Amino acid sequence: MNSTYFTRRTIRKYEPREIGEELLERILTAGVRASTTGNMQVYSIIVTRDRAIKEKLAPAHFNQPMVTEAPVVLTFCADFNRFSKWCRQRDAEPGYDNFLSFMTAAIDALIAAQTICNAAEEEGLGICYLGTATYNADMIIEVLELPSLVVPVATVTLGWPAQVPDQPDRLPLEAVVHQEKYVDFTASAIDDLYRAREARSDSIQFVAENGKETLAQVFTDVRYKKSDNEFFSAKFLDAIRRQGFTV
Amino acid sequence: MNSTYFTRRTIRKYEPREIGEELLERILTAGVRASTTGNMQVYSIIVTRDRAIKEKLAPAHFNQPMVTEAPVVLTFCADFNRFSKWCRQRDAEPGYDNFLSFMTAAIDALIAAQTICNAAEEEGLGICYLGTATYNADMIIEVLELPSLVVPVATVTLGWPAQVPDQPDRLPLEAVVHQEKYVDFTASAIDDLYRAREARSDSIQFVAENGKETLAQVFTDVRYKKSDNEFFSAKFLDAIRRQGFTV
Repeated sequence: MNSTYFTRRTIRKYEPREIGEELLERILTAGVRASTTGNMQVYSIIVTRDRAIKEKLAPAHFNQPMVTEAPVVLTFCADFNRFSKWCRQRDAEPGYDNFLSFMTAAIDALIAAQTICNAAEEEGLGICYLGTATYNADMIIEVLELPSLVVPVATVTLGWPAQVPDQPDRLPLEAVVHQEKYVDFTASAIDDLYRAREARSDSIQFVAENGKETLAQVFTDVRYKKSDNEFFSAKFLDAIRRQGFTV
Repeated sequence: MNSTYFTRRTIRKYEPREIGEELLERILTAGVRASTTGNMQVYSIIVTRDRAIKEKLAPAHFNQPMVTEAPVVLTFCADFNRFSKWCRQRDAEPGYDNFLSFMTAAIDALIAAQTICNAAEEEGLGICYLGTATYNADMIIEVLELPSLVVPVATVTLGWPAQVPDQPDRLPLEAVVHQEKYVDFTASAIDDLYRAREARSDSIQFVAENGKETLAQVFTDVRYKKSDNEFFSAKFLDAIRRQGFTV
């Protein structure tokens, strides 16, 4: 298989160079050929290049600079709007305003998203996922004028790399892969899996910079705090409900 | 980019031939290098090859034959168990038992899943996503012994293709791709987007076989019924909550 899978890294800085229409269309077409539940294609992709709209999207992504600097911003949405409209025009009563259908549509959106990312990286483009799409779905819904039954689940910035950052470490394969059944972790297994990461000089520096005692505390107390997670859980659930899905 | 993106089709019949350990490990490693939120890797992959366990999983997937016939069944899970255990061992209090964290972990799982599918297909393997992973998450949790904060979100069967089915049609690109903002569909736009699909002989046959008047009715009345969606929504939400996520 192509080596991009193994050499890739997230790219957050892009050259001030456009992505050609033909290339972008080829990448998007790769995404559209990926698996989709019952061939319903219950997702949508918003391609934003316009500077003014990217500037309106930026606050939803906590003003991370790649939103305005990337030539293309892709917003992937769970979408039962188009499908439900089609049903109603064909004497069929759609029943997709529920949690399972939201998840089905979110899965469709993410399968397309990741295929597009893989295809883009194979062409030399760089990508960055912004988790903020779920944090501030309400703001994205407003800026992109998403109708009922359409909810953003992932945003990806796309462009020609202007940096070659170090490849981040990953845990050993056995941290995520279980054979036959889930084998839960003993305390010493956890120690073994995280030892190399915790010993890295960049990890040690990260802990010091944040004034913490352990790397885990940087996650729980600074980067992904319980209070933030709970605040944004309520906000995201509210956005999903306002878009018409019962949760 | 490699042509597999454009020539692929879902494969439901497999040769009775194993997937070599080395190949499987390479494919899984490709998945592990894909994007993950804050490098937390909050997902897990259960690799099931054992016939007896596949037979126990089969009912969760409505006994679709590929579950027992495929040499490998992959179950992709949203997983905050390992990460939370690590936090607790490092004097850090995890706060990931909420809906946002569930979604973050589900997104991580699906990004890995689809990278693995793309890499597998590039190697000549065939894949099939089983949407039933969310329908019957409770049954999968029991068979695979998934602990608290672990929820299956996708199952993929993997093997060497023993069939070359027709490639399914897809809607025109403009059905899923919107430029700059979401442009909602007029009635005539819906007609245009679905015209070719509805005119296909296999679509016409499908409508007739199901005793329906329109293709949309096959979806709303037979394949993805409102009553089923609501039943499985409640069941999936219950499974998520019992695994410890507040929704």
